[in-house]
Amino acid sequence: MLSKCGIISVEDAELIIKGLNKILSDIENGNFEFDPALEDIHMNIEKRLTEQIGPVGGKLHTARSRNDQVALDTHLYLREEIAIIARLICDLEKAIIETCEKFPAAIMPGYTHLQRAQPILFSHHLLAYFFMLERDFRRLYGVWQSSDIMPLGAGALAGTTFPIDRQFVADELKFSRVYENSLDAVSDRDYILEFLSFASILMTHLSRLSEEIILWCSSEFSFAELDDAHCTGSSMMPQKKNPDVSELVRGKSGRVFGNLMALLTVIKGLPLAYNKDLQEDKEGLFDTIDTVKTCLKVYSSLLRGLKINREHMLNALESGFANATDMADYLVKKGLPFREAHEATGKGVAYALKTKKTLSELTLEEFHKFSPLFESDILEEIKIESCVNNRNSFGGTSGEQVKLALAMAKKIMDDQYSRLRTYDVGDF
Amino acid sequence: MLSKCGIISVEDAELIIKGLNKILSDIENGNFEFDPALEDIHMNIEKRLTEQIGPVGGKLHTARSRNDQVALDTHLYLREEIAIIARLICDLEKAIIETCEKFPAAIMPGYTHLQRAQPILFSHHLLAYFFMLERDFRRLYGVWQSSDIMPLGAGALAGTTFPIDRQFVADELKFSRVYENSLDAVSDRDYILEFLSFASILMTHLSRLSEEIILWCSSEFSFAELDDAHCTGSSMMPQKKNPDVSELVRGKSGRVFGNLMALLTVIKGLPLAYNKDLQEDKEGLFDTIDTVKTCLKVYSSLLRGLKINREHMLNALESGFANATDMADYLVKKGLPFREAHEATGKGVAYALKTKKTLSELTLEEFHKFSPLFESDILEEIKIESCVNNRNSFGGTSGEQVKLALAMAKKIMDDQYSRLRTYDVGDF
Amino acid sequence: MLSKCGIISVEDAELIIKGLNKILSDIENGNFEFDPALEDIHMNIEKRLTEQIGPVGGKLHTARSRNDQVALDTHLYLREEIAIIARLICDLEKAIIETCEKFPAAIMPGYTHLQRAQPILFSHHLLAYFFMLERDFRRLYGVWQSSDIMPLGAGALAGTTFPIDRQFVADELKFSRVYENSLDAVSDRDYILEFLSFASILMTHLSRLSEEIILWCSSEFSFAELDDAHCTGSSMMPQKKNPDVSELVRGKSGRVFGNLMALLTVIKGLPLAYNKDLQEDKEGLFDTIDTVKTCLKVYSSLLRGLKINREHMLNALESGFANATDMADYLVKKGLPFREAHEATGKGVAYALKTKKTLSELTLEEFHKFSPLFESDILEEIKIESCVNNRNSFGGTSGEQVKLALAMAKKIMDDQYSRLRTYDVGDF
Amino acid sequence: MLSKCGIISVEDAELIIKGLNKILSDIENGNFEFDPALEDIHMNIEKRLTEQIGPVGGKLHTARSRNDQVALDTHLYLREEIAIIARLICDLEKAIIETCEKFPAAIMPGYTHLQRAQPILFSHHLLAYFFMLERDFRRLYGVWQSSDIMPLGAGALAGTTFPIDRQFVADELKFSRVYENSLDAVSDRDYILEFLSFASILMTHLSRLSEEIILWCSSEFSFAELDDAHCTGSSMMPQKKNPDVSELVRGKSGRVFGNLMALLTVIKGLPLAYNKDLQEDKEGLFDTIDTVKTCLKVYSSLLRGLKINREHMLNALESGFANATDMADYLVKKGLPFREAHEATGKGVAYALKTKKTLSELTLEEFHKFSPLFESDILEEIKIESCVNNRNSFGGTSGEQVKLALAMAKKIMDDQYSRLRTYDVGDF
Repeated sequence: MLSKCGIISVEDAELIIKGLNKILSDIENGNFEFDPALEDIHMNIEKRLTEQIGPVGGKLHTARSRNDQVALDTHLYLREEIAIIARLICDLEKAIIETCEKFPAAIMPGYTHLQRAQPILFSHHLLAYFFMLERDFRRLYGVWQSSDIMPLGAGALAGTTFPIDRQFVADELKFSRVYENSLDAVSDRDYILEFLSFASILMTHLSRLSEEIILWCSSEFSFAELDDAHCTGSSMMPQKKNPDVSELVRGKSGRVFGNLMALLTVIKGLPLAYNKDLQEDKEGLFDTIDTVKTCLKVYSSLLRGLKINREHMLNALESGFANATDMADYLVKKGLPFREAHEATGKGVAYALKTKKTLSELTLEEFHKFSPLFESDILEEIKIESCVNNRNSFGGTSGEQVKLALAMAKKIMDDQYSRLRTYDVGDF
Repeated sequence: MLSKCGIISVEDAELIIKGLNKILSDIENGNFEFDPALEDIHMNIEKRLTEQIGPVGGKLHTARSRNDQVALDTHLYLREEIAIIARLICDLEKAIIETCEKFPAAIMPGYTHLQRAQPILFSHHLLAYFFMLERDFRRLYGVWQSSDIMPLGAGALAGTTFPIDRQFVADELKFSRVYENSLDAVSDRDYILEFLSFASILMTHLSRLSEEIILWCSSEFSFAELDDAHCTGSSMMPQKKNPDVSELVRGKSGRVFGNLMALLTVIKGLPLAYNKDLQEDKEGLFDTIDTVKTCLKVYSSLLRGLKINREHMLNALESGFANATDMADYLVKKGLPFREAHEATGKGVAYALKTKKTLSELTLEEFHKFSPLFESDILEEIKIESCVNNRNSFGGTSGEQVKLALAMAKKIMDDQYSRLRTYDVGDF
Repeated sequence: MLSKCGIISVEDAELIIKGLNKILSDIENGNFEFDPALEDIHMNIEKRLTEQIGPVGGKLHTARSRNDQVALDTHLYLREEIAIIARLICDLEKAIIETCEKFPAAIMPGYTHLQRAQPILFSHHLLAYFFMLERDFRRLYGVWQSSDIMPLGAGALAGTTFPIDRQFVADELKFSRVYENSLDAVSDRDYILEFLSFASILMTHLSRLSEEIILWCSSEFSFAELDDAHCTGSSMMPQKKNPDVSELVRGKSGRVFGNLMALLTVIKGLPLAYNKDLQEDKEGLFDTIDTVKTCLKVYSSLLRGLKINREHMLNALESGFANATDMADYLVKKGLPFREAHEATGKGVAYALKTKKTLSELTLEEFHKFSPLFESDILEEIKIESCVNNRNSFGGTSGEQVKLALAMAKKIMDDQYSRLRTYDVGDF
Repeated sequence: MLSKCGIISVEDAELIIKGLNKILSDIENGNFEFDPALEDIHMNIEKRLTEQIGPVGGKLHTARSRNDQVALDTHLYLREEIAIIARLICDLEKAIIETCEKFPAAIMPGYTHLQRAQPILFSHHLLAYFFMLERDFRRLYGVWQSSDIMPLGAGALAGTTFPIDRQFVADELKFSRVYENSLDAVSDRDYILEFLSFASILMTHLSRLSEEIILWCSSEFSFAELDDAHCTGSSMMPQKKNPDVSELVRGKSGRVFGNLMALLTVIKGLPLAYNKDLQEDKEGLFDTIDTVKTCLKVYSSLLRGLKINREHMLNALESGFANATDMADYLVKKGLPFREAHEATGKGVAYALKTKKTLSELTLEEFHKFSPLFESDILEEIKIESCVNNRNSFGGTSGEQVKLALAMAKKIMDDQYSRLRTYDVGDF
């Protein structure tokens, strides 16, 4: 750009580019020793360049300032990492879809307040996480847009006196936009805060999934079992499988929330344009990127190795009166107002509890004690399978709806993948 | 919807709707006393309805659960508040544009490290905040999209056994989408977290502006003066104007960050689907909405009343060697590598300091002490006005570029406003 | 003090004191209407005073500033609330002790990684929370000390020109110390930050207890049952008891952490002495005090109504190989190095798993398959009761040690109570 | 302890101790390569020990679990670091005292709302930070007490079946107390949370000092100058001294707040006893310790090199009506109620503003325009020096009081130092 705009000569530009390419291959081959005394990568490279091609190396920095260079670096870096994380989200979505397809008919208790409430398909439960991840993907795309903007040319804060062409630089580096204001360009950290917010919300999802995996793997629930790669055994207690991986992911939500809080604090109350405080944006960002990538990867693989115990899930339902709502709905459909149906059902459940029966074990006569509206079809209606399949409106847990939801999920995932594929590496 | 789908009779539906309309007008006229013992608004209304129209009132709740109703309420509420906040952002942008146009030629020092660095247009400085707000607007639109999704019909967690039509409800309530998964519908709080993230980032911007206003209003800076509505005077010290409003806004960033952190903590590690913990999402949301609205309003009005002291700004520049970069750039343009030009300039500044002159007061002979490349045009080049206007590439501080930026800003604001106008109240 | 120091006349002082007493009784009798336009309580009272006793009322404010008055108010208020909270902590400790004494011999599984690990006494488990609360009490005492310091006389920031006697005021108001530096006196918010830190740590404890209560009340664990006052039932599902209270307490940890984070943010980077931002310290403090008091109260009462299911606890142990460590320890005591004993036990557990037996059901011959060191006493050694009682060093779960721990706990609680009793109301 | 209690033989113990001493010297001499595959330090050491002394090395782990070992390590480590940090606090206090003594008579404006309010001694201002640090020291001592408690012997969670002597271990390792409950011993992280709270509050203090240093070093204030070691110059702009160090310290408050928030989040809702999430306590603790140590060190040295510009400070006062309060106090002392004196002074200041005079430049006749109570001594009373010295009650800014405060500060610091000296290294 500098030579194209006539700021430096074509010869100087060629010399510099050749020198930089040499340095690049040195770095890639491990032949470049960084000197911390030179403070940052730009000074290290400029020094080596000057050693190689003489004083003309000093022209590399023309029309630039460390402030806009560092901003550019961070944008380039984050844009690239976002693309990697987007792929990891897709892969976790894929693992969810595969797991749903592996266990299409498994029924488990759906919980509210950690109390068994209504029977649901295991795949329905798992798909809830798919749709959380879809939102994460969408949010991440928003962060990518906020990162896809070119700061170079802002100089230290006010622009530069050289006749530079910022749009040309943006095109070369495949940025969609250029910062419209030079002060904003060097002091903006919104895109990092947005990334940390995205990551924090993603981690709430993974922490919830982790909590559930930990519960399901407890002896008390016994709904699921992890393969050996995702838990820690004990030579002394071979039956004990600690869900360490899920515990760690749950715990790592704290670190990500903390990194968000840290940067919000840093930026609070800073006057424009550049302040050294902003240097504190780096470590928390790097740490969050590492954490998010690790957690996504580990869950893709954990889910693929997850075994579930359909029998325990079903047992948990039989004894739990999870079909009480269906008994009440039966009465409402016969014309009883909701509150009265509710009450009649309550009496039925109380009676069953007292007589140590499940609702399915009650006779029609017994049902008549609670309402004359019951007919023989009540027993069909409160079968666990009926309870699942009767919830058949859009988004419900019936086999039909979950099949539809799975199809939607695949379509969404395919769209995401194809969006990622139309771009080069480093793009979204 | 219930009657349209044949779940309740048309007569019942009409009775219920008539009853609800009566209750609505009672509430609007202040003739409705809420009973906290009934726990929430839904129970209060159902009770009154049943008192008015008899047991058929109990059918209001058919195919519904408190879990999906509360989720719906929050979505409706937040969507509406977002639209209000979007307008307030536009209005603050407008106040910025007006302020820029009021002081088109004022020059002030641009700061890095709170040290005077380079001269910039006051309007260039202020426009940095415009572009922050543009991003806030864009992020807020993202939150709106995340809120614009209809949860009703998810029941307690698994859907409902009634043949409801969720899409019909969504259309009636002008929602773009319907939750695809019932568990997700009742346990999703992403849209609130996203809103709190948006608000936290917005507050970093307002806290930075506040810090600057406070600095500018100090006797030491004396760059600006607030009108009496936005500061607190003292009957004893009439010259003292405390920038209370800006201090409060700066402080209120804490409260918003805290609300974000609170909800992240609440959601961390919660198993699906509904847990009572989620009730804790409300107060922090309400408080954040109030805070953000107040802060935006107050700044629109504060900026419109802001007076600036151009003379003090200029004085601060003359004595500050803010044109040193331009002296160095001059040499670079004459062919000197950047680092050498830098060094020669440093000698010049040191000399000026020693002889108690500004750079503009040096003679050409004196300039020659530092480099033979200086010619008579150097004096023109380092005039404050030249320093401003020579930064003339896209995004720079020159009069020409700032004019362009202002035009862009107006275009952006107009687009935002017209986007808001195409929708009914409550829409974005 | 003002008249004692000769700053105002004795007559004026008497008039003022009489007027203030009248106002106090007006406020207590509800005959005082506060006017928000007068900004704060001090102006409201001064205005009423002046109406009552004439211009001499204006002398009330002599040698004072709103800055040091507000600081004093907050110190007085927090000191009083701390004393109340201290009593509530003691009462929760008492409820723990009573609950331990109600179920002295109940054995439950101790968990690591939510996997059953070793049998422990239920009372041993609960006492862990006692010792957390003891630390909370100690920390709260530290906050009390930080609050027990008198700021009045600091004026706006620099002290006052009147010959006041700050020590006299401190003695009258029973403060142990006086701020040694006037700037510090009006800008110090450490004591509030300390309180919020104390409260955050306390809430981690209550959130952990809440998580456990929620787990224990699930059908899967079935270790405990809440009385009706502390859970929400359902008329339709009378068997379902939602542990709402515990969920809410768990969720409310978020709000307290958020309040801490909010105030840390407010104070970050504020120059001395007073800035309006500091006004933001109030709401978060009030909300935290309310939250902490409610949560402590509710748990005292919840624990007192808690029923436990000893049979389920024991069943959970029999099937869980919770005595494997004891089998290994047996071998170590016979001289086998730890790692080898560990391995032999592992083989035993694997064998038992394969043969669907518990360890207690193995014969001596079967034990010999894993090590020749086993003798007939092994069966006694791995009984659940032995496992509990053999952990008999200080702090262990044996009946003897838990008895000792209970005695210690009572002693600690008594000391805390008697400390509280030696002071007047409002003191620690 | 193991041999003393007869758990292992004296010969085995001697062998183990000898082996461990060899390993210690290997580590100290850099001859020990840690193998990450062995997970942690305990396994690394046990493995080497077994290689050296044979299977008896395996007895090292007798009566121990990784859970209580890691807890012990962290307690030992934190206790030691606390002692180091305590010394660094004392040293910063010392630097403050020295700086006060270097500039005993410098007068600067005291600020409220960043507006000049009243004249104060520079040393009075700086001493405010001394008393903040005194509180930090006291809080740190509280953390030390919370860390000074011995967890070993808690086993995995329930104690151990071996007849260990925990008190003996505590005495050997110089711990004052032993955890009374084994579950608490392995799951307690209060002491780390307390440390992070201490550190967060300390960082608010340093961030406030940083903000002030940055302000003072701006051209607009010009109250202070940093020596070259604590700012970054520019070869091009030799007059520019960026207060990087202060900016970084201000920014680093964010990282510490974030670490606190992270661990609070981790612990929220964790059931007893040990969960892998707790492993996340380490990095944030290490990072906070490093940050706090660096920030304290750098400020001790920065203050020692600080130059102040008394002339600029005084100029800022002359023009600022900082003596208006004293003019009002004068009238109050003559018998005028506070509010009326306030008003008369306001008129005086307004008059002076209009006539472009300072208050000191008004004649007695002019004073009489505002109140007949003024006599000739008013001019003495409103001299800057009088304003300072008339604030002569305890904690005020008068020369006499500041002298007293300095003496108190020295006494406090000496007490702290001597407290530190009576203990061995690693103790408080």
